[in-house]
Amino acid sequence: MDSIRIIEVKESVFADNNREADRIRSDLKAKKTFLLNLMSSPGSGKTTLLTKVLAKLKNEMKIGVMEADIDSDVDAHTIANMGVDAIQLHTGGMCHLDAGMTEQGLKELGAENYDLVVLENVGNLVCPAEFDTGAVKNLMILSVPEGHDKPLKYPLIFTVCDALVINKIDVLPYFDFDMDRVAEYAHMRNPKLEVFPISAKTGEGIEAVCGWLRQQVADWQA
Amino acid sequence: MDSIRIIEVKESVFADNNREADRIRSDLKAKKTFLLNLMSSPGSGKTTLLTKVLAKLKNEMKIGVMEADIDSDVDAHTIANMGVDAIQLHTGGMCHLDAGMTEQGLKELGAENYDLVVLENVGNLVCPAEFDTGAVKNLMILSVPEGHDKPLKYPLIFTVCDALVINKIDVLPYFDFDMDRVAEYAHMRNPKLEVFPISAKTGEGIEAVCGWLRQQVADWQA
Repeated sequence: MDSIRIIEVKESVFADNNREADRIRSDLKAKKTFLLNLMSSPGSGKTTLLTKVLAKLKNEMKIGVMEADIDSDVDAHTIANMGVDAIQLHTGGMCHLDAGMTEQGLKELGAENYDLVVLENVGNLVCPAEFDTGAVKNLMILSVPEGHDKPLKYPLIFTVCDALVINKIDVLPYFDFDMDRVAEYAHMRNPKLEVFPISAKTGEGIEAVCGWLRQQVADWQA
Repeated sequence: MDSIRIIEVKESVFADNNREADRIRSDLKAKKTFLLNLMSSPGSGKTTLLTKVLAKLKNEMKIGVMEADIDSDVDAHTIANMGVDAIQLHTGGMCHLDAGMTEQGLKELGAENYDLVVLENVGNLVCPAEFDTGAVKNLMILSVPEGHDKPLKYPLIFTVCDALVINKIDVLPYFDFDMDRVAEYAHMRNPKLEVFPISAKTGEGIEAVCGWLRQQVADWQA
């Protein structure tokens, strides 16, 4: 339990976050390292999805994980217990990660050693969407209990993401959640958004997410 | 559907948010208006709780509602359709409300006409907790699907709240959620926090929340 490195990341010193993010992506391209930025509300299932995806992919490619959190390190322990390299980024109360903070994590982790690095962002549908972290792709999770109206209320995050995972479909019978409408609302924000209905708990749909991720990593390394 | 006033609130001009919040509270005290700040993650059930509470209290006291949202106005319509005065505050992308933004809403609503004004904050467990809105009390919702570990990960909001509503207890059988542990973790952050397990959907526990709110309003007006 005491092997997790905890990095206290500082707010970026860079005035132009977008330019810094582009610089990070160029650097990752040269290193053939794919960076995925994983975002959602608190409790949507980011860490659980990650454990299921890592179980399938960890023997196919070299993977490192950066767990961002305001204060705790429970998620990094969960990942490390799977035998996957993980570090914990503490944001010191900050509600999001920017490019500079992400870069501090990439350096600590040693991004050049991995095919895939996953950044689990702070649980928040608002602020993380406003800051390009330097990730190659953004994936967000919306879970069934949160409701299908969220693309109407939190438009930006649906706009900036490349893939939308709808998690907790095992509890669909107990909630008023309309799968067609959530896709319709999400595509109003972003017509190219790929949608993956899954249950991280039961494993349903995980293979489709892994397939998408495998293809993204292969395209980036080609 | 076109009767909702939408107020584009601007970021506060006040350097000292806490002092401004104290000024708002003094002013509310003089007017005998109780302001409740309602916070939670997206989709935890703020508006649904509010509709259930309003149904019980709207004939007992004069109530006004300020619905804060980044972009939509669906929640204000829901409240107005109950025959309760409601305005929509648009934050223009901002992830929280501060005291100055709240005051703009109170002026538009005409706070002096109400015993109770409810501010439904932006759905976010991080940023709203950092800004005193001038509310007399803060109430937060955590819903069962979000998990009982949230007080470990989002400490500040549990610290600044006076009451914690645990919503969606009707789906407890389908989630790994430990009611004793969430109370234990929450009380580590704030020993005085009052905890109300409810289901806004079935109505279970709503009367206890109404009882708490009645007492708070009565104490403030005494």
